[in-house]
Amino acid sequence: MGPVSNALDDILQRNAVRRDGKVADYIPELATADPDDFGIAVVSVLGRTYAAGDSTKTFTIQSISKPFVYALALSEFGLAEVSRHVGFEPSGEPFNAISLEPATGRPANPLINAGAIVTSALITGDAEARFARIRETLSAFAGRELELDERVYRSEAATGNRNRALAYLTLAGGALSRSVEDATDVYFRQCSLLVSAVDLAVMAATLGNAGVNPVTGVEVIHEDVARLTMAVMATCGMYDNSGEWMVRVGLPAKSGVGGGIVAVQPAEFGIGVYSPPLDSRGNSTRGVATLEDLSAEFHLHMLAHPKTPRSPILSSEQDGDVHTVKLLGELDFIAAEQIVHHVRRLASLTEPAARTVRIDLTNVTTIRPVAERLLAAAATGLRAGGTTFEIVDPAHVAEV
Amino acid sequence: MGPVSNALDDILQRNAVRRDGKVADYIPELATADPDDFGIAVVSVLGRTYAAGDSTKTFTIQSISKPFVYALALSEFGLAEVSRHVGFEPSGEPFNAISLEPATGRPANPLINAGAIVTSALITGDAEARFARIRETLSAFAGRELELDERVYRSEAATGNRNRALAYLTLAGGALSRSVEDATDVYFRQCSLLVSAVDLAVMAATLGNAGVNPVTGVEVIHEDVARLTMAVMATCGMYDNSGEWMVRVGLPAKSGVGGGIVAVQPAEFGIGVYSPPLDSRGNSTRGVATLEDLSAEFHLHMLAHPKTPRSPILSSEQDGDVHTVKLLGELDFIAAEQIVHHVRRLASLTEPAARTVRIDLTNVTTIRPVAERLLAAAATGLRAGGTTFEIVDPAHVAEV
Amino acid sequence: MGPVSNALDDILQRNAVRRDGKVADYIPELATADPDDFGIAVVSVLGRTYAAGDSTKTFTIQSISKPFVYALALSEFGLAEVSRHVGFEPSGEPFNAISLEPATGRPANPLINAGAIVTSALITGDAEARFARIRETLSAFAGRELELDERVYRSEAATGNRNRALAYLTLAGGALSRSVEDATDVYFRQCSLLVSAVDLAVMAATLGNAGVNPVTGVEVIHEDVARLTMAVMATCGMYDNSGEWMVRVGLPAKSGVGGGIVAVQPAEFGIGVYSPPLDSRGNSTRGVATLEDLSAEFHLHMLAHPKTPRSPILSSEQDGDVHTVKLLGELDFIAAEQIVHHVRRLASLTEPAARTVRIDLTNVTTIRPVAERLLAAAATGLRAGGTTFEIVDPAHVAEV
Amino acid sequence: MGPVSNALDDILQRNAVRRDGKVADYIPELATADPDDFGIAVVSVLGRTYAAGDSTKTFTIQSISKPFVYALALSEFGLAEVSRHVGFEPSGEPFNAISLEPATGRPANPLINAGAIVTSALITGDAEARFARIRETLSAFAGRELELDERVYRSEAATGNRNRALAYLTLAGGALSRSVEDATDVYFRQCSLLVSAVDLAVMAATLGNAGVNPVTGVEVIHEDVARLTMAVMATCGMYDNSGEWMVRVGLPAKSGVGGGIVAVQPAEFGIGVYSPPLDSRGNSTRGVATLEDLSAEFHLHMLAHPKTPRSPILSSEQDGDVHTVKLLGELDFIAAEQIVHHVRRLASLTEPAARTVRIDLTNVTTIRPVAERLLAAAATGLRAGGTTFEIVDPAHVAEV
Repeated sequence: MGPVSNALDDILQRNAVRRDGKVADYIPELATADPDDFGIAVVSVLGRTYAAGDSTKTFTIQSISKPFVYALALSEFGLAEVSRHVGFEPSGEPFNAISLEPATGRPANPLINAGAIVTSALITGDAEARFARIRETLSAFAGRELELDERVYRSEAATGNRNRALAYLTLAGGALSRSVEDATDVYFRQCSLLVSAVDLAVMAATLGNAGVNPVTGVEVIHEDVARLTMAVMATCGMYDNSGEWMVRVGLPAKSGVGGGIVAVQPAEFGIGVYSPPLDSRGNSTRGVATLEDLSAEFHLHMLAHPKTPRSPILSSEQDGDVHTVKLLGELDFIAAEQIVHHVRRLASLTEPAARTVRIDLTNVTTIRPVAERLLAAAATGLRAGGTTFEIVDPAHVAEV
Repeated sequence: MGPVSNALDDILQRNAVRRDGKVADYIPELATADPDDFGIAVVSVLGRTYAAGDSTKTFTIQSISKPFVYALALSEFGLAEVSRHVGFEPSGEPFNAISLEPATGRPANPLINAGAIVTSALITGDAEARFARIRETLSAFAGRELELDERVYRSEAATGNRNRALAYLTLAGGALSRSVEDATDVYFRQCSLLVSAVDLAVMAATLGNAGVNPVTGVEVIHEDVARLTMAVMATCGMYDNSGEWMVRVGLPAKSGVGGGIVAVQPAEFGIGVYSPPLDSRGNSTRGVATLEDLSAEFHLHMLAHPKTPRSPILSSEQDGDVHTVKLLGELDFIAAEQIVHHVRRLASLTEPAARTVRIDLTNVTTIRPVAERLLAAAATGLRAGGTTFEIVDPAHVAEV
Repeated sequence: MGPVSNALDDILQRNAVRRDGKVADYIPELATADPDDFGIAVVSVLGRTYAAGDSTKTFTIQSISKPFVYALALSEFGLAEVSRHVGFEPSGEPFNAISLEPATGRPANPLINAGAIVTSALITGDAEARFARIRETLSAFAGRELELDERVYRSEAATGNRNRALAYLTLAGGALSRSVEDATDVYFRQCSLLVSAVDLAVMAATLGNAGVNPVTGVEVIHEDVARLTMAVMATCGMYDNSGEWMVRVGLPAKSGVGGGIVAVQPAEFGIGVYSPPLDSRGNSTRGVATLEDLSAEFHLHMLAHPKTPRSPILSSEQDGDVHTVKLLGELDFIAAEQIVHHVRRLASLTEPAARTVRIDLTNVTTIRPVAERLLAAAATGLRAGGTTFEIVDPAHVAEV
Repeated sequence: MGPVSNALDDILQRNAVRRDGKVADYIPELATADPDDFGIAVVSVLGRTYAAGDSTKTFTIQSISKPFVYALALSEFGLAEVSRHVGFEPSGEPFNAISLEPATGRPANPLINAGAIVTSALITGDAEARFARIRETLSAFAGRELELDERVYRSEAATGNRNRALAYLTLAGGALSRSVEDATDVYFRQCSLLVSAVDLAVMAATLGNAGVNPVTGVEVIHEDVARLTMAVMATCGMYDNSGEWMVRVGLPAKSGVGGGIVAVQPAEFGIGVYSPPLDSRGNSTRGVATLEDLSAEFHLHMLAHPKTPRSPILSSEQDGDVHTVKLLGELDFIAAEQIVHHVRRLASLTEPAARTVRIDLTNVTTIRPVAERLLAAAATGLRAGGTTFEIVDPAHVAEV
């Protein structure tokens, strides 16, 4: 077992002793879950999977389906059209709150129930076609065919009257585009798809990998849709605990009353956790604790400050009328700023000025768009001043 | 003028034509602002300043003082104690909302007025001492002594009855720790400190530089406090527009009714914008548009996906019983994962196994904590298996 | 034409010139009403009818059905059981507000839509039986068979999604005892019964006549149920205008979006008004103005002070050892107080005391319960002191 | 002891055994009240006083001052002006709720704290003059000079921060016309006036006696102001229990956290009860139970139906060309209706018609305005038809 799996195992052991929280019972079938089940999985954006505990045991996805169906709706219709039906503001209220714009019935965001029902109903097609499309999409996110838990679905359909109420409110306001029975039936089925912690981690890793499932290689959604989806998860994913989550964990995430939580570190990995006992806000108690531990121990908070990187300039030497600047590492704004500063000084101060400035990207790993923009602008400036500007890029990291 | 300033200038020109919004008049003195004023500044975490327009014209900081005073309170008392008085949940409501926990009077977060007043009152000392400390801290963030606008202060003090109401509600609940007059007087003064767009950019860059002012080199707050502060800005900074801001801009930010907005890209730069006309939510209209443009054009969204980086393994060659792996660039989780995978394969598969594995960090720019943890764990594993593990680190990037 | 009809006609003419308000259009069929229709009727508790204008033109009863169906529910189950499902507190909110107890879904009162749907669903029987029972009861209140407006019913059923939402919320909480479709279908039919201003006046007069229809002589509900129904109308009948109504009109009342208003002066008469244009709160503008005029001109406010009545003691004379006290008028508390005082003085002060005190009720019109209690107690006291106590009651007004 | 006092004593004994409720402690001084204190008093509109228990023990009036100060404000400025500052709608919320119109800060009604503070501040004069005026008025209502409880006043002033918050909110909106300290100081003093159950009964009887103190004979307020005040008490007097109170008790009333309750039966009597333990809504538990008992046993509910009165026509006989109709009792609408009907038939049907109709009011106790209007109209009609119309009114009950 490698170091990642070891770390997951450690954290799992530590949190398994927690006994607080209560298995959801508002849907009768959910109450049958085993409170001792506890699994965790991490899937990197390169597609490797690490897991501990009951990581392949399946449970119903419930509210974790919401961001992924939102991503599907964004893919079909774009943000402008979708946001006519559902907003993206945290409501400061619980999952089943009535947070609708008075005049329009537009739910505050797609991650509260009202918003999720409206979002699910946007997908094209009749109930069968729509559910097929949602299942197919969530399966593509997970990288395997997800099954429906018929008993939970029937249990939700039998007891989901508050959700029907929310749906009727959105229908009355004009935000819901279908009949309530049609909309809620698909929604109940969507919530009853069976996933494991590993599935959730793959789904999250797909978001974090710009929409491409890192295990199957399939592009499930566009990169922009992945970003928008994670943005909404960042502010609304944990209901009325979203602010605290941003303070304590700092990763876009979503929980479900089935006991699952997903979280993403963009461009790094996805996480899935499963443990049925929930806190008063409907979030898995062991799941929350596990992610707090992971974030703290591994400095995963998306606003955590990395150590100040070295200068991106590995060397800078003139040989005849060619001045070669060897660059290093990931070129972001701050690296580009140093490079631009250095290169402009070269052009202005060196006597006699180099006729050619050669930028060597051999040791550069990636160039961020902002850095590309700045380097291109600098190159244009140099050329305008009569300097020849050359790029050496054997690894093809640049499109300057 | 370099490429950054050029870009700022372009965006300024483009947004200067906007004529929507209305200068704040709920405090009489604010109504005297010139609606045509428009300035922007960017300060990198290396301390370089870029600016365009009226970037040094001063105006009152207003609500932008809130996150910085929150940072001061966190510095003095820590998160546990501060959060007994003020929460960190977005309230889905306007800046002057009464979003208090019923039993305790604890405001939802430190960036609505009620929460800001409670936070300001936490600082040690009587009114004079407290305001002196706040002014000193905000000045340290800005890198220069900030002045008080006496007329705005008097105007706010004369008309700030809703703020006094909010303060009394928090006092009645127990969240406010001082008398209302004492608390609001300091708060009104704090809001009346004069800043420019450049000042705001330096202040934001200080947050983004782990609490160290990149211009003066002074450590104003601890790195953890900077992260917590930005986390609260990320979910609550733009009032009931915070969710949309995360979708459209994706940078921790804070606006003020004086017409200012600050935003941070952690580890990269801070931004300050100034333009007095406000939208219906109290955010500068040109300021919001400018930051949306900046984020879109330069891909600044904190959840935007970077292009997939190259492998961090520059080369991997065996010479006798020493196998040397040359690494490259920034080592984050995904890089470390590849390295660990590679090194473990080396140890397990190579026949005959190298007696020594030598990791060469010469071309590595920085190592993130999660990567350090994984590499250290891998090293321990190799050593336990009898392999010698060596690090070559001429630039001292590692503490493995 | 007599003086009552003349007065109604005057008030009608005066208010017919009003042109404010807007015919309801949220149910498409309602929008077809003629805004010029204007009728009024008064029916006394002795069964005489006075009318002016379009007093027999029919329109749908809408929300005016609510108190009468509430009366039916109280008749079937009693206040204790009914109040487990629906409260009796004014909510300070509009007719379609979601004013439910969070835990139970119990609506605030039976005169907002949510409460009316729950109340209607309490009635025994399946949908057909229930509607038959409600129609029969409202017909008994009106004294004639009420017809259903099929087109309005179908229009409401087609568009009543907010009502379905409210019903689902009460179902989810446990207050609604039937399926939503079943409950709302009967509710929509109940609201689509056709009534005229005269019908409404008879219905109101039935409430004001202790539950006995003064035209047909049929006891529709028990006196206690009539009192409870009027009590709820007094505080909740005009939605978020109920307080102003009590200030300006001071009669228990109920309005409907069909343009009708009913009001009651207990033990005196019922009023029905019909004029379709509504104000922003959904109350008929001419209807409200007409009732304000009526109340002001005729001093109908139930808290208005009557002129101080004469002493109830017409004469008091001793003849031998019999002292005869002739009483006069309506004996309420204040009359009884004077009589008791007088009689006790007779017994104590007169020398020699009359052996017999004879109370002559020949000129008494009625005795209120509180007066009966006091007179009976006084009689007991006199008898205990050895005085003979006699009642002369040729008109049988007493049960002392 | 007479029957009224006996009845009060019985009810007192019965309710004295209740042990639920809790003495108010949110103002420290209130917590020192003796939970066993229990007194009741009834004062009739003829000025007689009945009492039982601790009926002269004094306690602070607290919120019971509100309707009486509202009456004073109405006297000074009229309803139109007062209602620009405070509404008259029940808010469905607790006494200390923030029920203000968003734009104006206008409190929902004068019986919640916010509304009471605004109302108190309307009175003319500086703080001393204003309190003097309020004390003088409440003393006039009570018929004796009321004292201030300095300790409770100081305790309220020291702890009344929620009230200050409410005041600032109304100030910020524009509803409050004075500084908060000024307004709340007078309000705290007004609430700290000492009254007994007897005082409260006299105050209530003054309202019920058309504004004239029945003990002192002083007209404290105009009859219209008394009606308006009772109207607001009827819908808002018991906070979020007002609807239930109307259902169960049916008398305009007001409670205070000092343990007092007042109630009025207009034109009959006032009631004062005192018992410190309060229920969760801040109403005296024994007080509420006592008034429910009184209302039920003595049928005091203002919407209770009186037994149907006898015909008001005692005799109707023709002698020559004079037809004499002897009337009886209280002439209200329903009596007048019968008389008009009878008299018009006399004029139309009798052959040969009487030249003179003589109405004999000797046995009439009082004539309500509506009856006056109808009888006058009928007389006009007869005269127009050539009939002579005469009134015999030895007791001067009519102004026909």
